[in-house]
Amino acid sequence: MAGSVHIEDLFSSLGDALVTDPDRMLAYRRDQSLLTEAGMPLALVRARDTDDVVETMKWAHRHGVPVVTRGAGTGLAGAANALDGCIVLSVEKLNKILHIDTAARTATVQPGVINGDLAAAVAEHGLWYVPDPGSRAISTIGGNLATNAGGTCCAKYGVTADHVARIKAVLADGRIIHTGAVTRKNVAGLNLTQLLVGSEGTLAVIVEATMRLRAAPTAASTVVAAFPSTAQAIDAVLAIRDRAEPCLLELMDRTTIAAVNEMTHMGLDESAGALLLIQCDGRDAGAEAQTCAAVCAEVGATEVYDTDDPVEGEEFMQARRVALTALERQGSTLLDDLAVPIPRLPEMLSAIEQIAQKHCLVIGTFGHAADGNLHPTIVFDAADDDHTRRARLAFDEMVAECLALGGSISGEHGIGVLKEPYLERMVGSVERELMSKVKVAFDPTSILNPGRGI
Amino acid sequence: MAGSVHIEDLFSSLGDALVTDPDRMLAYRRDQSLLTEAGMPLALVRARDTDDVVETMKWAHRHGVPVVTRGAGTGLAGAANALDGCIVLSVEKLNKILHIDTAARTATVQPGVINGDLAAAVAEHGLWYVPDPGSRAISTIGGNLATNAGGTCCAKYGVTADHVARIKAVLADGRIIHTGAVTRKNVAGLNLTQLLVGSEGTLAVIVEATMRLRAAPTAASTVVAAFPSTAQAIDAVLAIRDRAEPCLLELMDRTTIAAVNEMTHMGLDESAGALLLIQCDGRDAGAEAQTCAAVCAEVGATEVYDTDDPVEGEEFMQARRVALTALERQGSTLLDDLAVPIPRLPEMLSAIEQIAQKHCLVIGTFGHAADGNLHPTIVFDAADDDHTRRARLAFDEMVAECLALGGSISGEHGIGVLKEPYLERMVGSVERELMSKVKVAFDPTSILNPGRGI
Repeated sequence: MAGSVHIEDLFSSLGDALVTDPDRMLAYRRDQSLLTEAGMPLALVRARDTDDVVETMKWAHRHGVPVVTRGAGTGLAGAANALDGCIVLSVEKLNKILHIDTAARTATVQPGVINGDLAAAVAEHGLWYVPDPGSRAISTIGGNLATNAGGTCCAKYGVTADHVARIKAVLADGRIIHTGAVTRKNVAGLNLTQLLVGSEGTLAVIVEATMRLRAAPTAASTVVAAFPSTAQAIDAVLAIRDRAEPCLLELMDRTTIAAVNEMTHMGLDESAGALLLIQCDGRDAGAEAQTCAAVCAEVGATEVYDTDDPVEGEEFMQARRVALTALERQGSTLLDDLAVPIPRLPEMLSAIEQIAQKHCLVIGTFGHAADGNLHPTIVFDAADDDHTRRARLAFDEMVAECLALGGSISGEHGIGVLKEPYLERMVGSVERELMSKVKVAFDPTSILNPGRGI
Repeated sequence: MAGSVHIEDLFSSLGDALVTDPDRMLAYRRDQSLLTEAGMPLALVRARDTDDVVETMKWAHRHGVPVVTRGAGTGLAGAANALDGCIVLSVEKLNKILHIDTAARTATVQPGVINGDLAAAVAEHGLWYVPDPGSRAISTIGGNLATNAGGTCCAKYGVTADHVARIKAVLADGRIIHTGAVTRKNVAGLNLTQLLVGSEGTLAVIVEATMRLRAAPTAASTVVAAFPSTAQAIDAVLAIRDRAEPCLLELMDRTTIAAVNEMTHMGLDESAGALLLIQCDGRDAGAEAQTCAAVCAEVGATEVYDTDDPVEGEEFMQARRVALTALERQGSTLLDDLAVPIPRLPEMLSAIEQIAQKHCLVIGTFGHAADGNLHPTIVFDAADDDHTRRARLAFDEMVAECLALGGSISGEHGIGVLKEPYLERMVGSVERELMSKVKVAFDPTSILNPGRGI
């Protein structure tokens, strides 16, 4: 690794943006994942502009020092955890919304802009930035792009990848690239934009992105339906597809319902095996929600409630939003992020219940039912070695089951450190070798987040 | 290039699938583009199965022979034109629909399946394969993926890239890869699927694809509106975005209207400067179409007609569908495929008119207004050298104007041979170098459609 002389070179170009005080670097060592390794960085760069990123990359390239880029550090897979002797390159100060083009319906932003800040800024122009990861109040657009963040909107409107037009990025050697086009359609050359999305800082450092906006959303109508079992809830999810296209379709299992009740005293139906929360938007939201409610009743919901009142709807959605927090109150949590084809959800949910029983663990499952994307959350005592060991075993077994069902080991959190052991099983060895070669095309000396995400 | 001894090696593994008779190869030398170079192939392989593709690639890799993959040859940019001494690898016989999964809503197909055949097959199951390029009756899914084909549906439902879940492909060295996942969300590793889409046969040979399906479409309501000028028609396009989301929003200019009338005697309003054809679908199609009609009237349409009758709607759409054929009756045509940000459409349309006047050419423009994707079509006499020269000049100038307006040199046809001279101006030299390096990662000896698309 680089010695102190080299770091002084970097200090001369970065000044205050360079931090080497170990205490000040501590908060930048990890993202929000549990049970992931984190090293001790050589230095922290809090980039103030693109030039700082360029200088950092040129220096790192010259000296062969790894660089771990991070936004707000809200990741859940360890992709932004420091490596020993690395530069942690924080883009949190690159937080300007550079331009909102109301005619072209795009917003050009720096990577450190908080998702919710962008959404609020464009709302003032009657526009809508759609992607809404659970972390939207605290996570950055750069991080959302690096992990291809999802959220509850994906059922109808897709993931972050579906809302990006252009990316400006700094390559490993400090050169700048611009990818994509503002136009809705573009087939000029290889799709470097979609390659950067979800690449978890392994290919380049995103320094600017032009995101697509939609017309302001209409008021949503909400349905809450309680089912005796998760299997019946999924029957409803499958049946709804033929008659409606909800903009949100979320699932909470029995364990999650109880945890939410305990925290919020909301009085959700604890006799239910599963709860579906459904929202419809658009010109015919009310009628569409009623269709969803009718379908729920037809497939065996024990209780169905629907409302056109946005405030009441928001109260119900709050139950889903606090799901993770509610489970976190019960212990340490290991949050998974599995996606399976929608018809395989009953098998996946049943397997999760069996795995919980087998290892005597509490696993609360909630997630984006319309995408087949579940977040089974293992609650355990991190101070208890055996408990932790069982949590890891359960995690392994859930991932294995997901792969057996033709699923993906990550729907929206990314691979990072947490899922690296499973990646090759999912994508295959030839495919992984190909991904590594593509990384080399971008980053020939492998200094950008080496060992992560690919 | 390889001598006859080498080809005999290939014959022993391929038998009848290998064609070296020059007369039989003639029909496989070109796609449907005009003014693009095409070479004379060494041989034609009409692959019968994946093994034939693997054997062909292994042989080509061993002998350093270029391979040009083709589906139905309906491309419009020359990407499937033969190179001298190449193998033309036709996948037209790989035309099986392997599996329609009604629960997961996917169809797994071989690359030679005709788009319209897939749409018809899934319709029997009450499902919808959405992408609808103009060539849908004759073009293949493999070709649609290779060029990221668009169509009229893109306004609301996106391009081919938005409807692919998994790809099975043969690498340059004959190894097989599987990319992507059936799940709606997947962030495991780099997005090789979106890298293959639009890569015009430069990275791998697609031998299987799993495409996403939607619930059967609802009946569409149709609006036809005539405007004094193209500028006013675009005013309507911009205003409609705030109040509706049409599933189709097509533009025809004065020249195209006249050509369609001449061919079909449909009696479209020839005094109009532009016609918009609009369709809305979904639960509230009729009311949404009426909203569109009202917007058109508000911004100055001279005539607005709307109908909920699908048969009548289809008759109007027929006018748009025959646009290219109608212009082709007037001479040779050089069809362009430019995309600009929607607010820049008036400038692009006005520039096209000026370029036509300057070079004394007929240029009929039609296209996908909601995507900013125009097909200005130069009508010229290919037997007249000066006329052809002026057509090329006009083509150059239209592309230059598109780039000046922040547009893309291809919205849905691809780069191929036709747009190669403009690619670097659009994507930049560092970016193009990066694309070449990504190609090397897939195809280290550059045998897959070398010199095309990147």
